[in-house]
Amino acid sequence: MRSFSFFERASRAFRDNPTASKLLVVVAISGGGGGLLAYSDSKPPEGLNAIAASEYKNKKRVVVLGTGWAGTSFLKNLKNPSYDVQVISPRNYFAFTPLLPSVTCGTVEARSIVEPIRRIVKKKNVGIHFTEAECISIDPVNKKVYCQFSQDTNSDGKKEFSVDYDYLVIGVGARANTFNIPGVVENAHFLKEVEDAQRIRRSVIDCFERANLPTLSDEERRRILHFVIVGGGPTGVEFAAELHDYVNEDLMNLYPDVKKLVKITLLEATDHILNMFDKRITAFAEEKFKREGIDVKTGSAVVKVSDKEISTKAIKSGETSSMPYGMVVWSTGIGTRPLIMDFMQKISQTNRRVLATDEWLRVEGCDNIYALGDCATINQRKVMEDIAAIFKKADKDESGTLTVKEMQDAIDDVVERYPQVELYLKNNQMESIVDLLMHAKGDKTMESIELNIEEFKSALSKVDSQMKNLPATAQVAAQQGSYLADCFNRMEEAERNPEGPIRFRGEGRHRFRPFRYKHFGQFAPLGGEQTAAQLPGDWVSIGHSSQWLWYSVYASKQVSWRTRALVVSDWMRRFVYGRDSSGI
Amino acid sequence: MRSFSFFERASRAFRDNPTASKLLVVVAISGGGGGLLAYSDSKPPEGLNAIAASEYKNKKRVVVLGTGWAGTSFLKNLKNPSYDVQVISPRNYFAFTPLLPSVTCGTVEARSIVEPIRRIVKKKNVGIHFTEAECISIDPVNKKVYCQFSQDTNSDGKKEFSVDYDYLVIGVGARANTFNIPGVVENAHFLKEVEDAQRIRRSVIDCFERANLPTLSDEERRRILHFVIVGGGPTGVEFAAELHDYVNEDLMNLYPDVKKLVKITLLEATDHILNMFDKRITAFAEEKFKREGIDVKTGSAVVKVSDKEISTKAIKSGETSSMPYGMVVWSTGIGTRPLIMDFMQKISQTNRRVLATDEWLRVEGCDNIYALGDCATINQRKVMEDIAAIFKKADKDESGTLTVKEMQDAIDDVVERYPQVELYLKNNQMESIVDLLMHAKGDKTMESIELNIEEFKSALSKVDSQMKNLPATAQVAAQQGSYLADCFNRMEEAERNPEGPIRFRGEGRHRFRPFRYKHFGQFAPLGGEQTAAQLPGDWVSIGHSSQWLWYSVYASKQVSWRTRALVVSDWMRRFVYGRDSSGI
Repeated sequence: MRSFSFFERASRAFRDNPTASKLLVVVAISGGGGGLLAYSDSKPPEGLNAIAASEYKNKKRVVVLGTGWAGTSFLKNLKNPSYDVQVISPRNYFAFTPLLPSVTCGTVEARSIVEPIRRIVKKKNVGIHFTEAECISIDPVNKKVYCQFSQDTNSDGKKEFSVDYDYLVIGVGARANTFNIPGVVENAHFLKEVEDAQRIRRSVIDCFERANLPTLSDEERRRILHFVIVGGGPTGVEFAAELHDYVNEDLMNLYPDVKKLVKITLLEATDHILNMFDKRITAFAEEKFKREGIDVKTGSAVVKVSDKEISTKAIKSGETSSMPYGMVVWSTGIGTRPLIMDFMQKISQTNRRVLATDEWLRVEGCDNIYALGDCATINQRKVMEDIAAIFKKADKDESGTLTVKEMQDAIDDVVERYPQVELYLKNNQMESIVDLLMHAKGDKTMESIELNIEEFKSALSKVDSQMKNLPATAQVAAQQGSYLADCFNRMEEAERNPEGPIRFRGEGRHRFRPFRYKHFGQFAPLGGEQTAAQLPGDWVSIGHSSQWLWYSVYASKQVSWRTRALVVSDWMRRFVYGRDSSGI
Repeated sequence: MRSFSFFERASRAFRDNPTASKLLVVVAISGGGGGLLAYSDSKPPEGLNAIAASEYKNKKRVVVLGTGWAGTSFLKNLKNPSYDVQVISPRNYFAFTPLLPSVTCGTVEARSIVEPIRRIVKKKNVGIHFTEAECISIDPVNKKVYCQFSQDTNSDGKKEFSVDYDYLVIGVGARANTFNIPGVVENAHFLKEVEDAQRIRRSVIDCFERANLPTLSDEERRRILHFVIVGGGPTGVEFAAELHDYVNEDLMNLYPDVKKLVKITLLEATDHILNMFDKRITAFAEEKFKREGIDVKTGSAVVKVSDKEISTKAIKSGETSSMPYGMVVWSTGIGTRPLIMDFMQKISQTNRRVLATDEWLRVEGCDNIYALGDCATINQRKVMEDIAAIFKKADKDESGTLTVKEMQDAIDDVVERYPQVELYLKNNQMESIVDLLMHAKGDKTMESIELNIEEFKSALSKVDSQMKNLPATAQVAAQQGSYLADCFNRMEEAERNPEGPIRFRGEGRHRFRPFRYKHFGQFAPLGGEQTAAQLPGDWVSIGHSSQWLWYSVYASKQVSWRTRALVVSDWMRRFVYGRDSSGI
């Protein structure tokens, strides 16, 4: 009886040997695609933490705030063992947020899209420690962060503590933006955290149960079953579509008495939903929603949310009206967290809406503090600000004019430092900067071109118009995290052999190449097993085939094989049994 | 693009055709065994509820309180369409409670053990309506129940409503029993509802995260990681075992800094844990727990629970002591719900601890009210109370003595009405009542026996000592529910042709046979893939093989194919990936 059972032995074998487990899962999900996570050893050397604490006391202390896309991607890609990393986040898990709308209706379970951060970092050779707490203040002068344990500690009030850092990586994300509209915080649901999605799920079922109470009038039932979504961006649209499917495929059968009373309304302040997408997608989505009875009200801004009514104002006519509702979901973009606003005050970034970093993700005005993901924006340097310095560096013979040869020698550094140049050329169908200069000069023969500083300025004068902020998406945050980890991995090496572009306003080269975002496309699931996909090169696909693309991309992007298997099995469960409607 | 995709079509095919889906699942879980649920048509006739409301206005109104084991089993087995059934419960789902201890540590997901009650009843031809509300008062005089919607209705305060009944079926279950020990309600976790299990799960992770905070002393960490379980019954023991496995198999790796500080203590007031089981099981469990470092403290009763300390008193010595803790789980048996206590007052059952029913599950003193499951006990009729009436009925020739022939004619009815007689014979190795009478008379020849009333009394005098209350288990509740549904199914028929035993104190026969509990055995999972099983006939099995028996029984007893597939896949997930430790 003391010997191991088959089960126990087999289970241990599976869990001690990641390759075997990987194989099993590949079979189970029929090749769900490669993941973000590069497998390292399953078990870190025994007692690494103890060693890390004593032996490596001279390690640089890196503090990472947040375990969202940016922070997790940074941690996963950090390989340099010369850092002592302290992760601080109120959530001890990473959540695959693009699937949050699916969680609201039980298409995917909340637990399937989360992975404990300790599990993600424990496979690494770098000493990474996690503390479940919320950072409440950053002190850039003394290089300290002040944190607070988020639960009731029951520990004699010792809730606060501080942590010293040598490098600080801020990836705390954003909060939902209410635009200070009264009643939103009190009455609306947001859709930013896993808990939000769980609350929405319970709330939908609660509405159906409430509407079934015997004492209500039909009018009251109609109010309770009126679901309002504010914000016609990808999240709002996906939630509206999910909710419509949930109601029609699963709840209608179970609540036959009230099925005629359900209504879904989508409010959008601009003229169209999904307005960051191609027009074909917008038109398709609006048409589909109309056909399905989802009431899309564009051009109407919310002005107030009371406990039973939501008031809107038509943007054009200025007319206000209000409608009774049972549940409101608020999804209108992101706002800055109080921690970041406080921090911006301290570093005199008060005139900005969001925290600004340079192209290397360093917070402007702070050495050794990096910010990435939704909590920050890259403040892209303008060409025109540096135009004299660029001219000076490029003019190697100091003749006061630039030849094509000189220009060609400098162009790589210029394009790398100012990516808007490349974008401008591409958008104007020019092959190289020579085209641009020729265009400016009106000259036909390439070799004869020579520009003085004024001509050079005028040639590049429109280039900065191409500058765009990056969208607040998981894709951007993940790429920034992995970029920054790569910089940290090669910090000493790059100090010796800088690999970035020439410093136009200084000496030598930048240590690293600046961050460059690579856009892989975007999805907008529209319900009924249809998805719109907009891929680079204006390639647009709408329909069932894109849904399959969506399934495979989202499965492959999961943070671990575990969550991948869970998400895929959730999809299969839904396929066979439908969505659950228990009120838990 | 408007045609159905393969997925959509296949999904519909699956869900419209239960046989296909059944087959699929059978393959998926390799024959997980037949379920409780007999499949009827997947779709009820369209608009049945409307018809039910208008056409069958003369139907008897049955109100069922509760959707636990008793209520759900009743609903599932009710097949007679001549009732209009109204189900009222604060929970819109049925929960497979024996798996609650598994939910506390994430071995099984909460959602996998629940099935919406609407889904369970929608396959039936009987008109069953569900309302999510809590019954707050029963009025047996006016045949009404008063209910309250459990959530914040947001509906102008119309929270209460009443429902009329012709038959009332009470299956509201019990609450945790705190024995009025101070601080228990405020500081301890219970383990009766799905939400309790979810809270415990979060709380365990919270304790580990709290213990990892940088500001704490080791003493404080040790306190936070001290898990105390009060009550050494099957639930408490199973939770202790689950927690031990969770900590050792999953959390130790993720929280290496605090792994030496974890302690689990199991408190039991009597001398042994699992004292309703065979001694071999008790001994094995105590030995196993000791070996694993679970501190089992028997003979110690809790007297007070403060926010950080639990105080106990040794039963024998009377010594009191207290120990710091991080989390307490309270599992010491069941108490009566306020609704039932109030109801008992109204029907003058004030001198009793629990609601009493007769052997047909009718509440004593109330026609048309039935109570089953944990909220009631069957008040088994004593033979000695009816001994004169029995003698009179059996003495057909009114000779004043009973012959063996007369006795044999009456015995079937006696045994059916008073099951303790059979139990007494069995326990005393007697084959039939004749043995008992011969034994009483000291006679050797069967035919010559004749007993007068005094001799008859003395022969049966010890029989009532065999009477036992049924345990408060899911098994009992489920059997009672199905028994009662069967009575309701054949109500008119049994009115015409009564099938029960003779009424000794009245005329004719009882309509139905009294409820008889059939014990199929009991499990006590002990962790480490070992389970103790005690099956009828004192058959005891402990170890890994019983664990497999446990897996198959619990899989087969699931309420639907859906939950069966979910539970089995949860077990497989755990097997491959371990348990999750995210704090959600």
